[in-house]
Amino acid sequence: MEIKHMKRAIEISKRGEGYTSPNPLVGAVIIKDEKIIGEGYHELYGGPHAEVNAFNNAIEDVKDATMYVTLEPCSHFGKTPPCVNKIIEKGISKVIIGMKDPNPLVAGKGIEILRANGIEVKVGVLEEEIKKVNEIFIKYITQNKPFCILKTAMTLDGKISSYTGDSKWITNELSRKYVHQIRHKVSAIMVGIGTVLKDNPRLTTRLDDRYLDPIRIIVDTNGRVPLDANVLNIKSKSKTIIATTEKIDDQKIQLIKEKGGEVIITPLKNGKVDLTDLMSQLARMKIDSILLEGGSTLNYSALEQGIVDKILSFIAPKIIGGKNAKTPVGGQGRAYIDDAFILKDMTMSKFNEDILIEGYLRKEDR
Amino acid sequence: MEIKHMKRAIEISKRGEGYTSPNPLVGAVIIKDEKIIGEGYHELYGGPHAEVNAFNNAIEDVKDATMYVTLEPCSHFGKTPPCVNKIIEKGISKVIIGMKDPNPLVAGKGIEILRANGIEVKVGVLEEEIKKVNEIFIKYITQNKPFCILKTAMTLDGKISSYTGDSKWITNELSRKYVHQIRHKVSAIMVGIGTVLKDNPRLTTRLDDRYLDPIRIIVDTNGRVPLDANVLNIKSKSKTIIATTEKIDDQKIQLIKEKGGEVIITPLKNGKVDLTDLMSQLARMKIDSILLEGGSTLNYSALEQGIVDKILSFIAPKIIGGKNAKTPVGGQGRAYIDDAFILKDMTMSKFNEDILIEGYLRKEDR
Repeated sequence: MEIKHMKRAIEISKRGEGYTSPNPLVGAVIIKDEKIIGEGYHELYGGPHAEVNAFNNAIEDVKDATMYVTLEPCSHFGKTPPCVNKIIEKGISKVIIGMKDPNPLVAGKGIEILRANGIEVKVGVLEEEIKKVNEIFIKYITQNKPFCILKTAMTLDGKISSYTGDSKWITNELSRKYVHQIRHKVSAIMVGIGTVLKDNPRLTTRLDDRYLDPIRIIVDTNGRVPLDANVLNIKSKSKTIIATTEKIDDQKIQLIKEKGGEVIITPLKNGKVDLTDLMSQLARMKIDSILLEGGSTLNYSALEQGIVDKILSFIAPKIIGGKNAKTPVGGQGRAYIDDAFILKDMTMSKFNEDILIEGYLRKEDR
Repeated sequence: MEIKHMKRAIEISKRGEGYTSPNPLVGAVIIKDEKIIGEGYHELYGGPHAEVNAFNNAIEDVKDATMYVTLEPCSHFGKTPPCVNKIIEKGISKVIIGMKDPNPLVAGKGIEILRANGIEVKVGVLEEEIKKVNEIFIKYITQNKPFCILKTAMTLDGKISSYTGDSKWITNELSRKYVHQIRHKVSAIMVGIGTVLKDNPRLTTRLDDRYLDPIRIIVDTNGRVPLDANVLNIKSKSKTIIATTEKIDDQKIQLIKEKGGEVIITPLKNGKVDLTDLMSQLARMKIDSILLEGGSTLNYSALEQGIVDKILSFIAPKIIGGKNAKTPVGGQGRAYIDDAFILKDMTMSKFNEDILIEGYLRKEDR
């Protein structure tokens, strides 16, 4: 039954997607006589942890019950008191933990305290699955950089637009809706200035009100963003950041700020925004995840600078042709196939006739 | 049990793949008391039909038995006597036919004769599956043109080579082996002169001796094929055809013929080989199927001229980048996404970490 109960804990943990950043997704289930007597998940950043919500939702006395929790319970005072105290206090007799806290500063401490208090603890149930659910948190907490998802949408012959620049629409409605759901799940969405100048996108989550807009980041080396661009003028609870360099002039910075935009300056790297530095600055702002929907030039720079963790590649059942049509990743390119960026753990799914391929950059490439 | 027996007939019919061209793949199973008492398939062009092989392989008296056959039995003298005569003569009481003969000249005639002779006939079991198994034959017999499969192999960012032209290897060994199996199954393989000049391929089926080499077709508008090219010098039981135009000079034609090559002249279409005319000429030579492994220019011409039926698109878990790297389909390209070539019935499979997407051009595009 262990697997079944942990699966349930994982399942409910996902309900927090998009709301817990930069905290992890955590689910907890309290079991007595093989029955669920309470369950909860981390619902919102700053709010009660999964364990506390499970206790609050319990419909029976939890004394001597078993708790399943996807992540090691915390042992430190953060925004809320430590969960291990609560577990001990409530008289839980056994705790089954999906995975240790990936935060190297606290990993294992919660487990230690529980055991020191006579509670039976088991660690490592469905760990791979939980790692995947918390891939954003794990990258952020262990490397102090946002988890970066490169999303592209192309025809079956590898084009993101026709030779005339037309790109509406390559993918179908279902695929585009899924992208909006991902926008809700990440902290920020990042595009290049080329995309802003060409498409003037809003970069919002066009779903219902329960969904949040991500922070908008425009990579804009020279500060060319037009002051009337949608990203500087839309109504949204989240902000727009212009990531630029010393090449921008001071007056433009002022004007952007007057529009409510934020400006981040990075050093120059090959004459452009230093994306690695940008990632560090964004992490300091508690941005734990970025959806990169760049044009082909920015996408190549992002790969070259090793900031990409995951690829989402939508492929539409269309062929457009054109030796001058743009592809998902442009730039200079690698000279030899043997030097290509390599993806692993590729999976496929379908959105009606569109295909989505997901994969992860191998360690050496990020 | 009908489904089960027809499935068996389909299964054995596929053993003929690569050997029956331009005839269909046919399997037959003879059933008595729910037991298979004989089965056979069309093994080789010019050889006995599936029904006859099933009779020859029968281990019991077939009188009053039921025959399952994937395609309507023939009623005319071709390379062999009509199968319906044999079925009547052997005293078969019931014939279950997967699908009618797609050849409009003979469709339904075999069924008529069987019924006129008191045999119970049922038509249409697993018809969609059989249509797929015989997609080559159906196109060839109904339109008198070869079934053309466009095969491409690209990185996940849509490149068939790096910007330096390197393409070895994009896909893995398993994918490449599968391509060699397809080469065996088709009558001919077609590439552009660009591929010959760049890669000097042999275009043979590099599997064991049971596998046949396809006919090699080089689309070469100006007759630039080097006389020392592998395609004109390899040891192979099958021939090489140079598809060219009036732009070739007579002496070159002579030299190609001395090398054992054949030359086909087509009219000029936009200054190049007229692929539609070429397809008609190839059909007259009994070439029922072509694997097009073109470069991006030829692939676009083939799509533009509507000769492509099916796409096999291998996608490797690699990203190479490069705004000047080649993509599977080049040429001018269509100006707007709304005018793209549309694929239907897309399916996916994996060859280790490589992905294969298969799809069919919709009717309007072929």
